Amino acid sequence: MAEWLRDPGGEGFAHVYRIDEVLFDERSAYQHVRVVRTPLFGRMLVLDEAVQTTDSDEFIYHEMLAHLPLVTHPNPRSLLIIGGGDGGLLEEGLKHPLERAVMVEIDRMVVDATLRFIPEIPGDAFADPRTDLRVEDGFAYVRQTDLRFDVALVDSTDPHGPSVPLFGAQFYGDLHRVLADDGVLAAQSGSPLYQRDLIAQVRRNMGQHFPIVRTYVATVPTYPGVLWSFTLGSKRYDPVEIGRDQIASRVERFGLRYYTADQHHAALNPPPFLRYVTAGD
Amino acid sequence: MAEWLRDPGGEGFAHVYRIDEVLFDERSAYQHVRVVRTPLFGRMLVLDEAVQTTDSDEFIYHEMLAHLPLVTHPNPRSLLIIGGGDGGLLEEGLKHPLERAVMVEIDRMVVDATLRFIPEIPGDAFADPRTDLRVEDGFAYVRQTDLRFDVALVDSTDPHGPSVPLFGAQFYGDLHRVLADDGVLAAQSGSPLYQRDLIAQVRRNMGQHFPIVRTYVATVPTYPGVLWSFTLGSKRYDPVEIGRDQIASRVERFGLRYYTADQHHAALNPPPFLRYVTAGD
Repeated sequence: MAEWLRDPGGEGFAHVYRIDEVLFDERSAYQHVRVVRTPLFGRMLVLDEAVQTTDSDEFIYHEMLAHLPLVTHPNPRSLLIIGGGDGGLLEEGLKHPLERAVMVEIDRMVVDATLRFIPEIPGDAFADPRTDLRVEDGFAYVRQTDLRFDVALVDSTDPHGPSVPLFGAQFYGDLHRVLADDGVLAAQSGSPLYQRDLIAQVRRNMGQHFPIVRTYVATVPTYPGVLWSFTLGSKRYDPVEIGRDQIASRVERFGLRYYTADQHHAALNPPPFLRYVTAGD
Repeated sequence: MAEWLRDPGGEGFAHVYRIDEVLFDERSAYQHVRVVRTPLFGRMLVLDEAVQTTDSDEFIYHEMLAHLPLVTHPNPRSLLIIGGGDGGLLEEGLKHPLERAVMVEIDRMVVDATLRFIPEIPGDAFADPRTDLRVEDGFAYVRQTDLRFDVALVDSTDPHGPSVPLFGAQFYGDLHRVLADDGVLAAQSGSPLYQRDLIAQVRRNMGQHFPIVRTYVATVPTYPGVLWSFTLGSKRYDPVEIGRDQIASRVERFGLRYYTADQHHAALNPPPFLRYVTAGD
């Protein structure tokens, strides 16, 4: 009897995947870290019971969390990533002409397991001379750093355990402090199908500090429920106002598979049944 | 221990749903027909092991299969639906100023079970004076009818058992015969993630008869893999060329929850990783 992975999404619903091979299976100080091979989606990084990223669809989540906010800023030179231990978000960010990218991941085991078993996801991102990988608590880092950034991205697990503070008003206030006067913040904000309260909370908490708050959506096949939300907080630039030509000129050389000028605006302008997301709580 | 429904999607992948209540559970001459209640998605119509439609997201599939082709035709007066026993597609079609809608469903039990346990999906569609519901084999009906239609929609289960001929070149040829000289056909054509061969087959078979073939996608949370494809064959009108204002004026009074002018074009212009779908095999 094959082993199956069960990734719950809301009450009484889950995605299940047959595990053909367990490549890595250890417990860190923070979570249960696994890399498994599945037939349809290839290798998967799994934290506790939740699929974080896969061979086959990682680019959707990472492109949407990286490029939409980076393109919203006209000239980002410095990037801060909180979480994102698999390096996929860092890799996307480094496609832009940044001078430096600081990534603060609390759990070294996530970085190491990905580098060893799904190295295609980070690619060369961790070896890039612009990268400063810091293995420490992102919440504490943002409280005390003297550095300033143009764009900050929060690639956290869902709010349980060490991720809880990463969805709070205090954290967004600290991120506001470390962002430049025209800085842009974006964070994953959960499922529009079964985490509506979380999205409302993120929007409310970001709105305490940022004058512009926009939630956008993408379709990630391996996240249960599949529609996924991201919320952006901005001091000056509104992603809704970025022109298609401007977007295309910024990303056309990147060879992206999901994010385009059309997807930028489609993500910010979802079908009517999701307008509650973008209209706020 | 609660009972769970398991809807497989490709190799080693499934959606699972906790069943809180079984409302209907019988076997027809064609399939195992169930209506169950689940916590996250409400009532579901299940044929064999596959979720067909639910309370909570039926509008996505039905709006996209109905309105995009109906709007592609400038003035549809007559509609043919093959399959679609739950009536959700018929209900959407009847929002247009049609003179008649013929629906040919092979399995009366699907119609009866939906009407009894999820009556909100068909609404009043089966009682509409424009509706002619025929319980018979759709393949045979299209072979012999003398009627002609402006738009034909194929809302079938995936190709197994009685649905197999509904994906073949013979059937699309027969549909071409019953369509007017400017007629439009559309059919569900499976998952872009694990039924790529099916999409290619549908495009190839439709292309033997229709000069214009377009595949489009939507996000249906309760279909495994969630990205879903539809393929349109047209004798004269190209859905890519329909203007946004024209679309909006046709559907603005319908109160739709997914299909809009923006979604029409987004569905035909998917992210790059899905371009193989629209570019053909």
